[in-house]
Amino acid sequence: MPLVRISHVTGKPASFSAAVSRSVHDAMVETFNVPADDFFQILTGHEPGRDLLAPASFLGIEHTKDVVFVQITCAEGRTLEQKRALYASIARRISEVSNIKASDVVINLVETKRENWSFGNGLAPFAPAVS
Amino acid sequence: MPLVRISHVTGKPASFSAAVSRSVHDAMVETFNVPADDFFQILTGHEPGRDLLAPASFLGIEHTKDVVFVQITCAEGRTLEQKRALYASIARRISEVSNIKASDVVINLVETKRENWSFGNGLAPFAPAVS
Amino acid sequence: MPLVRISHVTGKPASFSAAVSRSVHDAMVETFNVPADDFFQILTGHEPGRDLLAPASFLGIEHTKDVVFVQITCAEGRTLEQKRALYASIARRISEVSNIKASDVVINLVETKRENWSFGNGLAPFAPAVS
Repeated sequence: MPLVRISHVTGKPASFSAAVSRSVHDAMVETFNVPADDFFQILTGHEPGRDLLAPASFLGIEHTKDVVFVQITCAEGRTLEQKRALYASIARRISEVSNIKASDVVINLVETKRENWSFGNGLAPFAPAVS
Repeated sequence: MPLVRISHVTGKPASFSAAVSRSVHDAMVETFNVPADDFFQILTGHEPGRDLLAPASFLGIEHTKDVVFVQITCAEGRTLEQKRALYASIARRISEVSNIKASDVVINLVETKRENWSFGNGLAPFAPAVS
Repeated sequence: MPLVRISHVTGKPASFSAAVSRSVHDAMVETFNVPADDFFQILTGHEPGRDLLAPASFLGIEHTKDVVFVQITCAEGRTLEQKRALYASIARRISEVSNIKASDVVINLVETKRENWSFGNGLAPFAPAVS
């Protein structure tokens, strides 16, 4: 059910976005009980320094022009422990499969009701039954 | 009050995005009590298969590389019946005016407070009056 | 903690997006208690009239093809007074540093829990401590 928006700098090889995309998905499967075939993502490339902006340092963490933003809209209800595990897994996986540092992975969750989703054919598969 | 983000594949004629855009708006007017002149949309084209990703099948619904994502940020308060009607209307309308199949229309709602909007001049027209 | 998405028309000089970007950030520092180094933004340029759509008039406010959308995902908890001040400050600042009219500045807030953020290294700095 998550819809993932990944915003990265332009000028990377195609293998880069594929690796980042896969890292985020695998982390959600691992920590958020997301089915393997629940894979909906939108990726965009942005001009570094002009269209993708992060501070040199925030909360003691340093950022470079290679910052990656991962904004995940998902159903509400995950626990704090699950969220902590998700952040750790995404940052670790991306840093393992690319030259992006874990410090350059910025993540934000937007939680919505389960009835707020349709995955095709105009249906609302996770909405409660109408009584 | 809705802000609509439509993400589709690149390489379509200009008439394509106009038809999809209009379909989503008309569906909101029909089912969500959105005024005809409340028309705020951001459209983006994405490289199919690389930057716009959907599973071949999820919940029994098949997706192709032509998947269209419609993410609608709107005021909270619509009923489940209204949401079901919105999903059905968007999917039907897009499939009628383009070669996109209803199965390739993925929709997500993000609901916010009515005070979370400004439509120009720095005003908050739907915020409660300050007592 | 905010993540700001700014969507503007293409074909502007680089100084334009920098000025708009700075305006939004300064307004958040002024009205939303955002630290100066809490500066995370994603900017995108869109084809006017085709990919960035606003009505000619809504609620008595006129829009042109130069409309700018500012969507801010932030922690919940700001007061209505703060939100009103934010909208006014963003619209005023953008209109002062660019040729964008205050009437063409459309703003939307998406509020989330404080635990829904990671700013690098997979940490959740604003989550409550696990007991």
